[in-house]
Amino acid sequence: MSQWPKAPELRVSSWLNTDTPLSLNDLKGKVVALHTFQMLCPGCVSHGLPQAAKLAHFFQQDDLVVIGLHTVFEHHEAMQLESLKAFVHEYRLHFPIAVDAPSGGSIPITMNEYGLAGTPGLVLIDKLGQIRFTHHGTIDDMLLSKMVSSLLGEVTANDDNLNFNKDDPRSNSSGSEKCSVS
Amino acid sequence: MSQWPKAPELRVSSWLNTDTPLSLNDLKGKVVALHTFQMLCPGCVSHGLPQAAKLAHFFQQDDLVVIGLHTVFEHHEAMQLESLKAFVHEYRLHFPIAVDAPSGGSIPITMNEYGLAGTPGLVLIDKLGQIRFTHHGTIDDMLLSKMVSSLLGEVTANDDNLNFNKDDPRSNSSGSEKCSVS
Amino acid sequence: MSQWPKAPELRVSSWLNTDTPLSLNDLKGKVVALHTFQMLCPGCVSHGLPQAAKLAHFFQQDDLVVIGLHTVFEHHEAMQLESLKAFVHEYRLHFPIAVDAPSGGSIPITMNEYGLAGTPGLVLIDKLGQIRFTHHGTIDDMLLSKMVSSLLGEVTANDDNLNFNKDDPRSNSSGSEKCSVS
Amino acid sequence: MSQWPKAPELRVSSWLNTDTPLSLNDLKGKVVALHTFQMLCPGCVSHGLPQAAKLAHFFQQDDLVVIGLHTVFEHHEAMQLESLKAFVHEYRLHFPIAVDAPSGGSIPITMNEYGLAGTPGLVLIDKLGQIRFTHHGTIDDMLLSKMVSSLLGEVTANDDNLNFNKDDPRSNSSGSEKCSVS
Repeated sequence: MSQWPKAPELRVSSWLNTDTPLSLNDLKGKVVALHTFQMLCPGCVSHGLPQAAKLAHFFQQDDLVVIGLHTVFEHHEAMQLESLKAFVHEYRLHFPIAVDAPSGGSIPITMNEYGLAGTPGLVLIDKLGQIRFTHHGTIDDMLLSKMVSSLLGEVTANDDNLNFNKDDPRSNSSGSEKCSVS
Repeated sequence: MSQWPKAPELRVSSWLNTDTPLSLNDLKGKVVALHTFQMLCPGCVSHGLPQAAKLAHFFQQDDLVVIGLHTVFEHHEAMQLESLKAFVHEYRLHFPIAVDAPSGGSIPITMNEYGLAGTPGLVLIDKLGQIRFTHHGTIDDMLLSKMVSSLLGEVTANDDNLNFNKDDPRSNSSGSEKCSVS
Repeated sequence: MSQWPKAPELRVSSWLNTDTPLSLNDLKGKVVALHTFQMLCPGCVSHGLPQAAKLAHFFQQDDLVVIGLHTVFEHHEAMQLESLKAFVHEYRLHFPIAVDAPSGGSIPITMNEYGLAGTPGLVLIDKLGQIRFTHHGTIDDMLLSKMVSSLLGEVTANDDNLNFNKDDPRSNSSGSEKCSVS
Repeated sequence: MSQWPKAPELRVSSWLNTDTPLSLNDLKGKVVALHTFQMLCPGCVSHGLPQAAKLAHFFQQDDLVVIGLHTVFEHHEAMQLESLKAFVHEYRLHFPIAVDAPSGGSIPITMNEYGLAGTPGLVLIDKLGQIRFTHHGTIDDMLLSKMVSSLLGEVTANDDNLNFNKDDPRSNSSGSEKCSVS
C-alpha cells in the first residue's frame, strides 16, 4: 500500500496551448510536472517558466507531460486571461497552460487543494497519479532532471522505491525570488 | 547653434511613482534618461528595466532623472493600467513611470513623436532638453554609464562637444530580446 | 552482443583528490562521467568544471563516479602539476582528478586513445565499461543529468536500450568556449 | 594642496602586451585603472579581468590606460611567467599586463606599497598621479564607469572635486569571490 497522496484533479477555468483540456486522470501512465506560476511573479519569469520550457524540450520524447498552472493569488485584476494570453505569446511558451479556477477567496481552487504556499511552484506526479515532490521556490536544473528521470524509470506497479525529500537542502526554498501567500 | 533635435514633450495619460507629473520643460538643467518599455516585453523585463533601476540607483545624487515610459504598441488589452501597477509593484520599480498617451492607432503618441522602433528603448536628453542618443535594444551598462556621465559633465551652455553615434557598433542593436514595430 | 566500444583504460601520470589511483576496470558496475579539461581553457573554467562539480554533488549517493582528466595539449609548460594543484585548490574542486600521461607528441595518451578533439570534453561510460556518449563543448545541465540518470537506471546486463546520439542537436558543440586541437 | 596620496611607481619584473614598459610618471595627464589579479584567483577570472577588458574597450578613445598587475601572493610556483603568458593568450587579454616584482616575502613589492589586501583589486589614479579609489573585490560596471568618467572629466589642475568613498556601500567588498591575504 502506498504512502503517497493522490494528486487532486486540476480545477481549470481556461486552457492555453492545447486543443483539448487535460486531466490528471487521463494522464495515468505518464509523469506530470506541474509548474505553478503567476505571470507577474519575477521569480517565475526569470526561473520557473524557462525551466519548465526546458523540461518540456529535453523530455519531449519521454512519457513526461509539463503543465503550467496559472495560480493567481494576488493582483487578480492585473492577470486576467487576456493578459495571460499576451504573456504566453511574448514569452514563447508552448506547453499546455491552465488557469486555476477561482474560488471565493484570493487563492484559487487547485492551488488551495495542493496546499501550495506561493509561486513559482513545482509538483511532480508519478505514473500512478501520486504526488511525489512539491516545492516552492527555485530548484537546480540538474536535480530536477534527475528526479524526473527517476520517476520516468519507475515501473507502473508502485514499488515505493523513490523518496524525494521535500525538505532536501539542495533545493533552494529561500530567497526573494518567489511570491508567497502572506 | 545646435544641431541636436529638441526632445518633444512627453504625452502621458497616467503617472506612477510620482506625486506630480513630470515635464521635460521643468527638467531643463538636468539630464533625462527615458527608458521606454512594455511590461510584457521579455527584453525589457530581463535587461531594460533592471538597467534603468540601476541607473537611477547609482546616479541618485546626480542631476539625472530616470523616467520609464510605458509605450504599448501591441496587446493593448493585456497591458492596461491595473496590470502595469501590479507589475511595477512586483518588480519593485521605484523611479517615475509614465503611461504613453494612446493615439488613434496602435502606437502611442510620444513613442511616435520620438520615432522609436520598439522596446526596450532608450533616449538620453541633455540639460538643454536636446535628444543626444536614441537606442532600440540592449546596451552595455558600462557604455551607458559613460554616456550619462559625459552628459552630466557638460556645462549648461551648449558646447556641442559630445557626439554619441547612434550607430555605435559597441551597442547591441540586434538580437531577439527586443520587440519591434512590425 | 554490444555495439558500444569498450572505454580504454585511463593512462595517468598523477592523481589529485584521491588516496588511491582509480581504474575504469575497478569501477565496473558504476557509471563514470569523465570530464576532460585544461586548467587554462576558459570554457572549462566557466562551464565544464563547475558542471562536473555539480554532477558529483547531486549524484553523490548514486553509483556515479565523476573523474576530471587534465588533458593538456597546448601550453604544456604553463600547466604543470604544481600549477594544477594550486588551480584545484583555488577552485575548490573535490572530485578525483587525473593527469593524462604525456605521449611523445602534444596530445597526451588517454586523450588520444579516446579521440577527443579538445576541451572541455565529456565521456559517459556505462556500468559495463562501455563508451556511451562523447562530447566536445558545452552541454546543458538538464540534458546531462537526464543521460546520467538513464545510465544509472540500466541493469548491469547489457540491454542496449540507450542510444544517445553524439550528434544530438540539443547539445551545443559549437561556440567559442572550447579549445580544439588545431 | 591635495589630500590624495601619490600613487607609488609600479615595480615590475616583466611586461606583457606592450613593447615598452609603462611608468606612472610617464602617464601623467591620463587616468590609470590598475587592475590587480592572480591568474588562479576565481573572482579575477570571472569578474575582475573581464571588467578590465571591457573598460579598456569602451574607453579606448579616451585618456584612460588600463593596466593589469599580476600580484601573486600565494602559490607562487603555480603562477610563473610561462603560465601567465599562456593564461593571457587563452583569455584573450590585450591590455598591458605587468608582473609585480617579487619581494623577499610572499607579497610582491607594488602590492605591498599600495597596501592591497588581495585580489581582484582596483586602483584608480587621476591625471595628477594621485590615488583616488582603491577597492578589493567586485564592483559594478556602471559604478566603475561613472567613476572613471568623472576622473576623465577633471581638469588637470587639482580641484579636489571628486571624493569617492572607498567604503561606499554600493560597491561589494564582501563575498567569496576574492582572494585575501590571510
